[in-house]
Amino acid sequence: MSNLDSLFNPSSVAIIGASPDERKIGGRPLSYIQRYGFEGEIYPVNPKYKEIGDLKCYGDILQIEKDVDIAIIALPSAAVIENFKKCAQKGIKSVVIFSAGFSEFGEEGKQLQDEIVYIAKQHGIRVLGPNCLGLFNVRTGFYGTFSTIIEDEKPIKSKIGFVSQSGAFGSHVFTLARQQNIGFSYFVATGNEADIDVADCVEYLATDPDTNVIACYIEGVKDGGKLLNAFKLARDNNKPVIVIKVGCSDVGMKAAMSHTGSIVGADKVFDTVFKQSGVYRAKTIDEFLDVTYAASQLPPLKGGRVAVFTISGGVGILLADQLAENGFTLPETPADVQEKLKGILPIAGTHNPIDTTAQISYIPTLLEDFMDAVLSSGAYDAAIIFLGFAGLKHNSIAERIETLRKMKDKFQNIPQIAVTINSPESSLAFRDEGVSVLQDPTRAVIALKAMKDFEQFKYRSLTQDFKRFQIDLSDIDDNLTEYGSKKFLQQFYLPITNEKLALTEAEAVQFAKEITYPLVLKGMSPQILHKTDKGLVSLDIQKEEQVYKEFRRLKGIIDNLPGAKFEGVLIQEMLKDDFIEMFVGSKYDPIFGQMIIVGFGGIYIEVLNDISMRKAPVSEKEAEEMILELKASKILQGYRGKEASDIAALSQVISKFSEVIASLDEDLSEVDLNPIMVFCEGHGVKIADGIITFNKQLAKI
Amino acid sequence: MSNLDSLFNPSSVAIIGASPDERKIGGRPLSYIQRYGFEGEIYPVNPKYKEIGDLKCYGDILQIEKDVDIAIIALPSAAVIENFKKCAQKGIKSVVIFSAGFSEFGEEGKQLQDEIVYIAKQHGIRVLGPNCLGLFNVRTGFYGTFSTIIEDEKPIKSKIGFVSQSGAFGSHVFTLARQQNIGFSYFVATGNEADIDVADCVEYLATDPDTNVIACYIEGVKDGGKLLNAFKLARDNNKPVIVIKVGCSDVGMKAAMSHTGSIVGADKVFDTVFKQSGVYRAKTIDEFLDVTYAASQLPPLKGGRVAVFTISGGVGILLADQLAENGFTLPETPADVQEKLKGILPIAGTHNPIDTTAQISYIPTLLEDFMDAVLSSGAYDAAIIFLGFAGLKHNSIAERIETLRKMKDKFQNIPQIAVTINSPESSLAFRDEGVSVLQDPTRAVIALKAMKDFEQFKYRSLTQDFKRFQIDLSDIDDNLTEYGSKKFLQQFYLPITNEKLALTEAEAVQFAKEITYPLVLKGMSPQILHKTDKGLVSLDIQKEEQVYKEFRRLKGIIDNLPGAKFEGVLIQEMLKDDFIEMFVGSKYDPIFGQMIIVGFGGIYIEVLNDISMRKAPVSEKEAEEMILELKASKILQGYRGKEASDIAALSQVISKFSEVIASLDEDLSEVDLNPIMVFCEGHGVKIADGIITFNKQLAKI
Repeated sequence: MSNLDSLFNPSSVAIIGASPDERKIGGRPLSYIQRYGFEGEIYPVNPKYKEIGDLKCYGDILQIEKDVDIAIIALPSAAVIENFKKCAQKGIKSVVIFSAGFSEFGEEGKQLQDEIVYIAKQHGIRVLGPNCLGLFNVRTGFYGTFSTIIEDEKPIKSKIGFVSQSGAFGSHVFTLARQQNIGFSYFVATGNEADIDVADCVEYLATDPDTNVIACYIEGVKDGGKLLNAFKLARDNNKPVIVIKVGCSDVGMKAAMSHTGSIVGADKVFDTVFKQSGVYRAKTIDEFLDVTYAASQLPPLKGGRVAVFTISGGVGILLADQLAENGFTLPETPADVQEKLKGILPIAGTHNPIDTTAQISYIPTLLEDFMDAVLSSGAYDAAIIFLGFAGLKHNSIAERIETLRKMKDKFQNIPQIAVTINSPESSLAFRDEGVSVLQDPTRAVIALKAMKDFEQFKYRSLTQDFKRFQIDLSDIDDNLTEYGSKKFLQQFYLPITNEKLALTEAEAVQFAKEITYPLVLKGMSPQILHKTDKGLVSLDIQKEEQVYKEFRRLKGIIDNLPGAKFEGVLIQEMLKDDFIEMFVGSKYDPIFGQMIIVGFGGIYIEVLNDISMRKAPVSEKEAEEMILELKASKILQGYRGKEASDIAALSQVISKFSEVIASLDEDLSEVDLNPIMVFCEGHGVKIADGIITFNKQLAKI
Repeated sequence: MSNLDSLFNPSSVAIIGASPDERKIGGRPLSYIQRYGFEGEIYPVNPKYKEIGDLKCYGDILQIEKDVDIAIIALPSAAVIENFKKCAQKGIKSVVIFSAGFSEFGEEGKQLQDEIVYIAKQHGIRVLGPNCLGLFNVRTGFYGTFSTIIEDEKPIKSKIGFVSQSGAFGSHVFTLARQQNIGFSYFVATGNEADIDVADCVEYLATDPDTNVIACYIEGVKDGGKLLNAFKLARDNNKPVIVIKVGCSDVGMKAAMSHTGSIVGADKVFDTVFKQSGVYRAKTIDEFLDVTYAASQLPPLKGGRVAVFTISGGVGILLADQLAENGFTLPETPADVQEKLKGILPIAGTHNPIDTTAQISYIPTLLEDFMDAVLSSGAYDAAIIFLGFAGLKHNSIAERIETLRKMKDKFQNIPQIAVTINSPESSLAFRDEGVSVLQDPTRAVIALKAMKDFEQFKYRSLTQDFKRFQIDLSDIDDNLTEYGSKKFLQQFYLPITNEKLALTEAEAVQFAKEITYPLVLKGMSPQILHKTDKGLVSLDIQKEEQVYKEFRRLKGIIDNLPGAKFEGVLIQEMLKDDFIEMFVGSKYDPIFGQMIIVGFGGIYIEVLNDISMRKAPVSEKEAEEMILELKASKILQGYRGKEASDIAALSQVISKFSEVIASLDEDLSEVDLNPIMVFCEGHGVKIADGIITFNKQLAKI
């Protein structure tokens, strides 16, 4: 039994600061709980009253004789601590603190909040808030909230669990949903998150039998790993998670030194981990609600073939355009089905999108006959039914809904979304028959696209089990040169150019012979990051005399740079074969850890910011996905008659490299392998240049 | 007086096929016209009746004694021609044909329709339809339509003129608007467009005093030039045009031979000409209506500085994110204003986005005091006010609306959009006070972005006046080589590489000396389009003996290709300076004419489809805009410490070239100037290779 059961599903509740005035912060929860049928024990606590309504009112929580699962504190902040201590003494398992005046109010408030957390930890109490709107459980009628959103009507019950870091945002979405007759299983506003945060709530809802979809509003994340674990649990239990995440991370990405670092923003990291965790990120409130609703209503989407039924040819084209843009197909109606449709209505448009025309209003069986014939063909995975403003036609909407209900029951594995302008009454009628309806065709396409994403998410999850390398960093220099960086990588069998570090001219000539001409010579100094800028790279060295000359020149440059230590001259094979230049990098995100980044080399790609990112580690398959999701990836697949590149070898390197960085974790600041040469299929890849920066403070411990 | 006045604004109307049954196609317009107060003459025509209601009914239109402006034909298709002829005889100026069964019904129907058009042309009659829902004028109460969308309620009057190629689509949008208490000045459904098309209607509305915004639904365009002229008229009269365009062009782009052609889709052409004409293209129905509504309601947006007032910090961040994404700024609240706000409400968030908190519900003056202080500062060009679900709070919404009305009156030049979930009642209350309100924060951002676009559109219009070149194509070969193509361009002073065509070895050596080494030699044959594929390009020729050898080799290759005629060997300077490779091309669109396309050279850019397009011609300023809107344009502006490129020279070449192709118009099939070398600022550009394909059939006439 989860230790949040006492919060989400209590059998007894004490309201400290209870009031007989339904408009007061301590009066609302009491009123809601009674009014909406909570069957557990209710204990008002307030020394001012002997009783409130029919209930005995206690002067102090310690006066309550029986055990209490949860206490709600609805008092001014100054009175909170004292009462919280009494809760601890009483053995309360969960406490909801409505009161403001804590960490959101500067240092003093923060200290008060820390004190609560300290006591809570000591006594094993879970705390929601402070400075929160509370929570409610629609099934049991437990309304531990002072929100006004439920004062006029009892909430609708559904299987959508909703967690919000903002009470105002949560209230807005709740009301918007209510207007569309969409309900919830739970509503939780987490406030200051002194203890319980969004991740805790997601984790609870992930195993809750009353919840099949989880919706979250997130502003900031303190513990990335905990959140990702909660998402994983939801995914493992086959519960879609829909997130709306606003703002940029407070912690932010550290100022970046390298090429790789500079092209990655914090918000892109959120995008990445959400997608990798199989979490759908909505960009607008409408999308947030539409997708949540669709996910809670529709069966899984098995494929991308959509049948469109429409009373307007124009909206049919609009839907066709938008479905195609979102990766769906609109397969042609099978010939025999077209014949059948023509038999029913000669003027119908029988090609998909199928135009029923306005005759739908005059032939009551038309829609059903059309849908039945088309969906029975087995040629479609989903259907969108555009009914215009049928939802406002009081005399005929019941007929439409009855048809849609029948079709939903008959084709249970085909997600079907009706689109019509609704009145509150027809919206209710749709809901009562379990028929999914949205108000706008585009929004139906987006919902269907999300359903497709959820299917793909089922086969996606963070790679968390991997063989962690034991890496000893004690002998590693603070600043590695290219030579040192690549040597470091070589121990993990990552392929690097054939190269040796020459300390003398004689060694240089000797190594040149071994590696064979043509060669590249590079001057190495740990203090010099950008070799080319300092003239420390000599290309296309063809013979011994050049080696002598260049060795002296390169060493000379370094010797003349104040503070620069000469490490040696790197004698390196010069790659001549046909290859494509790419880069692979890493970036440490303070919230989510090591991120791996892949992209093409070259200035255009940099300017166009065509990169692909994942939280490390990634499997080879995920690495291949990363490569293929680059906009320019066609180039690797044999563009314009060229031979295809060795994507398999690159995927291997990316995956292996990702395990290395994940193992190093916070000891590693960033890596920039740039370029990596990708040869033709079967010819592998080679890291031609690279630089590793460790997190010195940590690595030195 | 426009010859469409009799259609949009008639003083007398005959309804042929009139019926006393309000549910019949001939009964509806009669009923609407009478019910909604049309003050002109009404003449029902139907031999079956002597009178309909209070009106005398005529057996035949010829029996009507007085002149009639417009006739509506509501008869089966078979009876249309006979009655249309009588309309001609009667001297009717406009005819609306509801009847279906014409061009949409195959060849026979098409012939019938052509006959109508023939008679109409002969008698100067303007025809709306056939197969159309008709039109209405809300001001005069002229309802020449059988649509059911107005059967329950009289339409709301506003300054939005709405033209739709689809009756069903138009009806849907009308009803959606009605639900949000948004009205129209005119509604027109153009049906088969035998005569009057969308362009005609836009042209009419562009000068109509009752209309200040024009909304169009478009599926297909037959006469591109006419449509663009209508858009221009609207723009010249400062009336925003909002278009929703679905589907791809039926005519489509011709199959493309060259690089340039293959990367341009027909839909991109529509996007381009809409933008160039200052027309806003909406992608969804919600956007279509929101933007139309905002354009009809709000004052012009003078700048990009937005103040956000919000009752939810979370929605404030969401708005800030989305405003920034759309190019707006949220300047910090001035310090003195912040102080003032803190004085009013210490717990308020005084940074922009400004958080009024839920206290707005308890302090009636709070919103006004905040808005007044902030907007008085002069630091903002627009405001979004997020009120959550205030629109559903019957007891307080009047207060909110009153505040917003006052602020709108006080800050008349600052567009202000309120966002709240509405009930039908509050939506009406907002409208009655002229306060702009939308249901979702994101939709407010999109509306504001559209307002910004409209401001930019004011300074944009198709370059239509230009010095058309008189170009004699009679001596031009069907297939020009690179040499011939560049010679052709040179007559317009377009800069090409220094080059000469050598017919003999001796000439080759002579020209080589004149041009100076290093050189490029290219074998020319009109039959060979892709020189490189055939080995006809020799780079980096350094001396005379190489010229001899390469001349022979190149000539040999051509001589050995069956059917290939040897034109000569092009002796060309080899460009060595630092330059960036770009391309400029043209594509003839059958609807809109010559389009000019600009992009970077290189495989990455091709794969990423980073191109910029306009209808030709373009001014130098527009050419510069084209260059700068390329995603990779940073590269030309001096990226990573490189010198900036000569954008001015490139703009000149693009503009001049665009005038050439616009002059050639349909005689030109396509041009691909690829690459054009762009040198550093002040060093110009050079066309290094290029090919022109004329439209032979036409050019030969």
